[in-house]
Amino acid sequence: MTAEAVKALRAVIGNEFSLDLQEAVIGGEGLDTVGDALPPETLAVARQADAILLGGTGVPEDEKRPPSEGAGYGLLKLRKALSLYANFRPVKLFPELLDASTLKPDVVGGVDMVILRELNGDLYFGQPRGIETDAEGRRVGFNTMRYTDAEIERIAHAGFQAARRRRKKLCSVDKANVLETMALWREVVIEVSKQYPDVELSHLYIDAASMVLIRNPRQFDVIVTGNVFGDILSDAAAMLAGSIGMLPSASLGSDNKGLYEPVHGTAPDIAGKNIANPLAAILSVAMMLRYSFGLENHAARVEEAVGSVLRDGYRTGDIMQPGSRLVGTREMGDAVVEAV
Amino acid sequence: MTAEAVKALRAVIGNEFSLDLQEAVIGGEGLDTVGDALPPETLAVARQADAILLGGTGVPEDEKRPPSEGAGYGLLKLRKALSLYANFRPVKLFPELLDASTLKPDVVGGVDMVILRELNGDLYFGQPRGIETDAEGRRVGFNTMRYTDAEIERIAHAGFQAARRRRKKLCSVDKANVLETMALWREVVIEVSKQYPDVELSHLYIDAASMVLIRNPRQFDVIVTGNVFGDILSDAAAMLAGSIGMLPSASLGSDNKGLYEPVHGTAPDIAGKNIANPLAAILSVAMMLRYSFGLENHAARVEEAVGSVLRDGYRTGDIMQPGSRLVGTREMGDAVVEAV
Ligand SMILES: CC(C)[C@H](C(=O)O)[C@@H](O)C(=O)O
Ligand SMILES: CC(C)[C@H](C(=O)O)[C@@H](O)C(=O)O
Repeated sequence: MTAEAVKALRAVIGNEFSLDLQEAVIGGEGLDTVGDALPPETLAVARQADAILLGGTGVPEDEKRPPSEGAGYGLLKLRKALSLYANFRPVKLFPELLDASTLKPDVVGGVDMVILRELNGDLYFGQPRGIETDAEGRRVGFNTMRYTDAEIERIAHAGFQAARRRRKKLCSVDKANVLETMALWREVVIEVSKQYPDVELSHLYIDAASMVLIRNPRQFDVIVTGNVFGDILSDAAAMLAGSIGMLPSASLGSDNKGLYEPVHGTAPDIAGKNIANPLAAILSVAMMLRYSFGLENHAARVEEAVGSVLRDGYRTGDIMQPGSRLVGTREMGDAVVEAV
Repeated sequence: MTAEAVKALRAVIGNEFSLDLQEAVIGGEGLDTVGDALPPETLAVARQADAILLGGTGVPEDEKRPPSEGAGYGLLKLRKALSLYANFRPVKLFPELLDASTLKPDVVGGVDMVILRELNGDLYFGQPRGIETDAEGRRVGFNTMRYTDAEIERIAHAGFQAARRRRKKLCSVDKANVLETMALWREVVIEVSKQYPDVELSHLYIDAASMVLIRNPRQFDVIVTGNVFGDILSDAAAMLAGSIGMLPSASLGSDNKGLYEPVHGTAPDIAGKNIANPLAAILSVAMMLRYSFGLENHAARVEEAVGSVLRDGYRTGDIMQPGSRLVGTREMGDAVVEAV
């Protein structure tokens, strides 16, 4: 999928810009080759890059590692090391995919939202964490949900600013009725909202939000939430776009550097079989052009190319509908390059 | 809604059994009347009862309380004080409600699963928790996700036993790739599975589960998961039953005592307006008859009565479809009593 995304990137920049592309291993491949899910060389390459395009993190051959040394952790460490705290996950239904969704057309038609997930805090990074054995030999696992007011402030600002550029509605999702961390989250979001009187702020508990997302998704413009709830909500939103294979994402920090990756992770069962949908990776390239390189027109051209191949009936298996044309990963990538 | 549930309970037991019904306040009403979300008298009444039917927990007039003193916390304390650790949330689509769902009929038709949510551990109860201010006046919120192997074992057994009584498939939902607590969860579930070779065990990460629930819900039989993920997943499943107003629940411990409540919480905006759907509360009474009183036939009669009023076209607003008959909370309750 990443190869198809790079092809699309090369196609859209043509001879206008030169591309200095470096490859580096992470996750499962990092563990298998150098025994580290985020090898220092990879981090060094990422640090000096203007933008990072991430493929799946893979699974290591030996899966029996603790979470903090596992394949996924390479990605988590990278997000954190580069302070990429704002993960934008746009959820948009291409009209051609109305039938690919498991939701009724009148419910999903026109869905267009952004889920903004905080990416540097929460249970993902809180200390203490671990598994301990007590005197009687009983074991206990523990992790720490943790947010500082400063962390909440900066993601809240990102949420209000994103809403301001769109339909000016921000929904903050928490569990303030049960968790102190989330009570602080709500309090800080309300405080920050005073600087954005033009944005309409609402609040939902994560349980209610998961339901409303499927009951009435069109009501959402921008959703801002924590790392764990954002992970869950954005996957729950997959069917709103017809398939998780259609969801790109951009992780940004305080400058233009960004990490771009599909919302779907690794799918070891279909990897290398030329059947996976490359469009999430290709749409992630569009986000890269927009946010890291300021090339809005080029970004739009990639997105239009995706729309046009869908209009022409090209479909990978995950979005296949009767009457459409089933193609593989490479054929879909080629079609996008052609359209670009 | 609770009044309608009690009417249905009285109707089905008739003169066959006597009902010793005691009422007690909890949540918002507890806070407003005696300043306690779980007054000692309420806990005492609940302790000596055979079964508890819970109405919404309400919101206190003064909503500005920390989570551990808020309205919802009365319910959490009650679940914990009575060691009701196994929360069964069946998700079943009455065929009459095929059109009420926002999912396509061929996706939701025949959905029949149970979400088993652990109810006494996790972020809901883990210590330490709170909001602290550091030397520079910055604030930090924190909560502790925590599970012991013993807590995981007992809910895993409940899950395997439930699956054994059904289609013999158990899906355990965790986030074992990121959280140590959940890595322990998965390890213990796999260990317990050795005692249930007849049950097919699978695992999903919570993010993937939230997607698959909407993409292909019929594949699930029993889902077992932690307190937080179970809270989210069961609300996310609302549209599979046509409305959250159709989802009952039973919280059980090591004996027959149980707490029965709709999955939907309080809806202050519609409370007292005679428009809420009482069927989740009525179906919770059916679960009570089944699990606390061993009255399977009576339980089935209540469930059949619900099916029959739906067949007769009675609908509250949340499940209303063109051509059906819009009724209020009381009329729906009366219709069920009539059908019983
Ligand atoms: C692979 C995993 C660590 C990751 C996460 O949980 O953040 C993934 O699910 C995602 O959503 O990007
Ligand atoms: C009211 C609230 C504390 C409760 C919970 O989070 O458990 C509710 O959402 C539920 O699902 O029963």
